Amino acid sequence: MKQTLDRRHFTSLLASILASGALSAGNSQQNQQSPDEKTMHDMQDVPAEWAGKEHIVMLAYPGMTALDLVGPQYMFSSLMGAKVQVVAKSLAPILTDTGLTIVPDASFADVPSAVTVLFAPGGTSGTLSAMQDEETISFLKSVGAGCEYITSVCTGSLLLGKAGLLDGYRATSHWITLPLLQRVGAIPINDRVVIDRNRITGAGVSAGLDFGLQMVSDFRGADYAESVQLLCEYSPKPPLNAGSPETAKPHQVAMLKNMLAGFLEAVEQEV
Amino acid sequence: MKQTLDRRHFTSLLASILASGALSAGNSQQNQQSPDEKTMHDMQDVPAEWAGKEHIVMLAYPGMTALDLVGPQYMFSSLMGAKVQVVAKSLAPILTDTGLTIVPDASFADVPSAVTVLFAPGGTSGTLSAMQDEETISFLKSVGAGCEYITSVCTGSLLLGKAGLLDGYRATSHWITLPLLQRVGAIPINDRVVIDRNRITGAGVSAGLDFGLQMVSDFRGADYAESVQLLCEYSPKPPLNAGSPETAKPHQVAMLKNMLAGFLEAVEQEV
Repeated sequence: MKQTLDRRHFTSLLASILASGALSAGNSQQNQQSPDEKTMHDMQDVPAEWAGKEHIVMLAYPGMTALDLVGPQYMFSSLMGAKVQVVAKSLAPILTDTGLTIVPDASFADVPSAVTVLFAPGGTSGTLSAMQDEETISFLKSVGAGCEYITSVCTGSLLLGKAGLLDGYRATSHWITLPLLQRVGAIPINDRVVIDRNRITGAGVSAGLDFGLQMVSDFRGADYAESVQLLCEYSPKPPLNAGSPETAKPHQVAMLKNMLAGFLEAVEQEV
Repeated sequence: MKQTLDRRHFTSLLASILASGALSAGNSQQNQQSPDEKTMHDMQDVPAEWAGKEHIVMLAYPGMTALDLVGPQYMFSSLMGAKVQVVAKSLAPILTDTGLTIVPDASFADVPSAVTVLFAPGGTSGTLSAMQDEETISFLKSVGAGCEYITSVCTGSLLLGKAGLLDGYRATSHWITLPLLQRVGAIPINDRVVIDRNRITGAGVSAGLDFGLQMVSDFRGADYAESVQLLCEYSPKPPLNAGSPETAKPHQVAMLKNMLAGFLEAVEQEV
């Protein structure tokens, strides 16, 4: 991975991207865009060393949690020259578990055998359905065999585990599914982002921002990643302090455990 | 706003939602879902006091930053009984500035005259185009006139300002566009989330999570919001410390200011 940033590259490139409007594809035919229009990761005039440097494949499936994917997707798309694709079984729109609908960029069949990053988002019963889906698991196995980094956020690590991709690796998951990682041969680690060789996993939902920023730093160095962090103003200030079982109130932890008991039981039968 | 949580309601309802699979709409026809399928905010069996309690309208437009909307959308969708809609000029898919494509739930014409929350996400040149679009600004004016809360994240506050909705109000924006709020009659405040009467605005991109959680707390009380925070494990741990101009290195601040100078100039001419 490249550890230094040529600031002149970053400045002049992003300046030209913004000036051209390509970053936002803003134009007067606002609702008639083609998915082929230029966006940040399609720019032509990136330094030769970055052009096509990373190919990042982000799995999408019905019932996934959109934020699990969109946090990391923001960060990955800041890697100039990288190709970032949301990939699903087909190009049909995908209804996520909060009701937001997203459109994949490519289908499983379009993904080449060697990519840089494979990413799996989480969810609850949608993730369970994906674990039970032979085509999805086969896709993960196949891409996982030829990629440089195998990654996830939230219960996406259960999908990786089901595909046999975490055997013997330290990994994390949503706090409530963390113990289940043992069932797929992984070593559960209670941390926000866990890196073990080329397996990089993030904790629940919102951990995707920390995970994604960590990967930007690994790929392009801390100076580049800090500029991205400043661009998205990632200086979080939660108005409450219940984001982990350690800081939430005991009745809240118990309530969510109770609420997800059926899901946990069903997952246990799958792994 | 309701300030207390009946935990039995929360537990039993979410448990039944998860057990039914409605939260994720997971099923064997994974790519053949209809957007009409049940999701969290469409559930029938919510307590009478919550059913249809809030109608939240989230503006979407080409070139917007997806994460500006998806963070708050996660939080809003946790409000059981609320109707959360992503609304755009038409139902055509929208290409966002990181290359992610989302599908609106409704078009401007479908939005009734009185809703609970109007929300505007930001972006760069896509936001500028939206500011220049008469139909979008008219929509904001019209919905803004009849809604209970007028809200934004990032440069979305410039859109609200352009529509005359922040005149005399304290508000925030992305750190780089904060001074421009004066041009639309607002009082710029450098804070993560700024609440002034019924105007609630968040800072850049990632501030949408803090903004959204704050609104959940305002609508349903702290105990409810803490449970949501625990569910999405929102205990952020950025791997770097450059998320604000105060903590980033001076050359990073200068670089982004330089990079966005053209955008700022163009926005100044619009407001």
